[in-house]
Amino acid sequence: MNIEKYPSKLLENAVNEFSKLPGIGRKSALRLVLHLLRQEASEVSAFGNSLIQLRNEIKHCKVCHNISDTETCQICANPARNNSVICVVENIRDVMSVENTQQYNGLYHVLGGIISPMDGIGPSDLEIESLIKRVDSGEVIEVILALSTTMEGDTTNFYIYRKLKGKDVKVTTLARGVSIGDDLEYTDEITLGRSLVNRVNYENSLGK
Amino acid sequence: MNIEKYPSKLLENAVNEFSKLPGIGRKSALRLVLHLLRQEASEVSAFGNSLIQLRNEIKHCKVCHNISDTETCQICANPARNNSVICVVENIRDVMSVENTQQYNGLYHVLGGIISPMDGIGPSDLEIESLIKRVDSGEVIEVILALSTTMEGDTTNFYIYRKLKGKDVKVTTLARGVSIGDDLEYTDEITLGRSLVNRVNYENSLGK
Repeated sequence: MNIEKYPSKLLENAVNEFSKLPGIGRKSALRLVLHLLRQEASEVSAFGNSLIQLRNEIKHCKVCHNISDTETCQICANPARNNSVICVVENIRDVMSVENTQQYNGLYHVLGGIISPMDGIGPSDLEIESLIKRVDSGEVIEVILALSTTMEGDTTNFYIYRKLKGKDVKVTTLARGVSIGDDLEYTDEITLGRSLVNRVNYENSLGK
Repeated sequence: MNIEKYPSKLLENAVNEFSKLPGIGRKSALRLVLHLLRQEASEVSAFGNSLIQLRNEIKHCKVCHNISDTETCQICANPARNNSVICVVENIRDVMSVENTQQYNGLYHVLGGIISPMDGIGPSDLEIESLIKRVDSGEVIEVILALSTTMEGDTTNFYIYRKLKGKDVKVTTLARGVSIGDDLEYTDEITLGRSLVNRVNYENSLGK
């Protein structure tokens, strides 16, 4: 459709709003809006209000900067979690990914991004200073760097590593290696090489 | 992700609402919600309210059942349009498609669906009676059936054709033929056969 003639301003307005979302073009937006038109008014209100309420009422945890309904997030406030380990991640999706493994019982620190000069994101745009302060508070034994294995991730890892150097804290990073279920034939050389260098005792690899 | 642990009830609620939309899974919903969280509160309000307002204030044109901001839609209310021709379509998206061709100056009649016994949709669920009434009003010279070329579309076409039989109105349907830009080699036999039977004078095919 080159020329878009909507039969209604209200419709056009809703389509415009929907198509601002990433990955949603004008045709998909129209499809979604027409779907909503077929729903009960109360359902559409619930949808619209859930978004407005989310944006207005959501908080960021004052300790780890994860999003939260309260001043301190559920994870930081949980006394059963190990507060001497901090896992540094890029965003809240990564918190959810690590939580879903059910293999981690420490706390998090959400940077809010990674250092990316191309996008104009420097260390001062990220929650790095507050991480250093948490480490300086003295209770932290280990900082796990869990960023993407990209150049930006590696840069950010190295920046944080240098900032923490000399402090009484162990800095670790996620193990790199062959993914479970992966065919060796199709594993890239760098990953395969790294997993050879960092090979582990077979008994340890069985997990618990 | 098998177990979804959201750091916030508000977030979970918004993700639930988004993933009710057709074609949006829980991962996409989370991505969209996190995108909205990064926008200004006023933008998110505009988005949410545009949907609520649309659902609450939209009207259906009392003549053609197209959606509209007013009692009678812009097309039906336009004195420049030819009110002796009615193009029968399935839904408002089809109205927009025909309008976008800029080749049609008559009015529309939106059925709100097509006869589909498999989905439990019979003639009484569609705006067929109101179409007959419009024809009976006497001003209509031609009814153009512009439904999908599916079995359901053909059934609906035939149902309406029978209802209009004997009335003083010409019933036409869209020309079926080889799409413009299509390779003959890849055109299906039925379409190609139909376009041979209904071949047109070359001079007429040049368009205006």
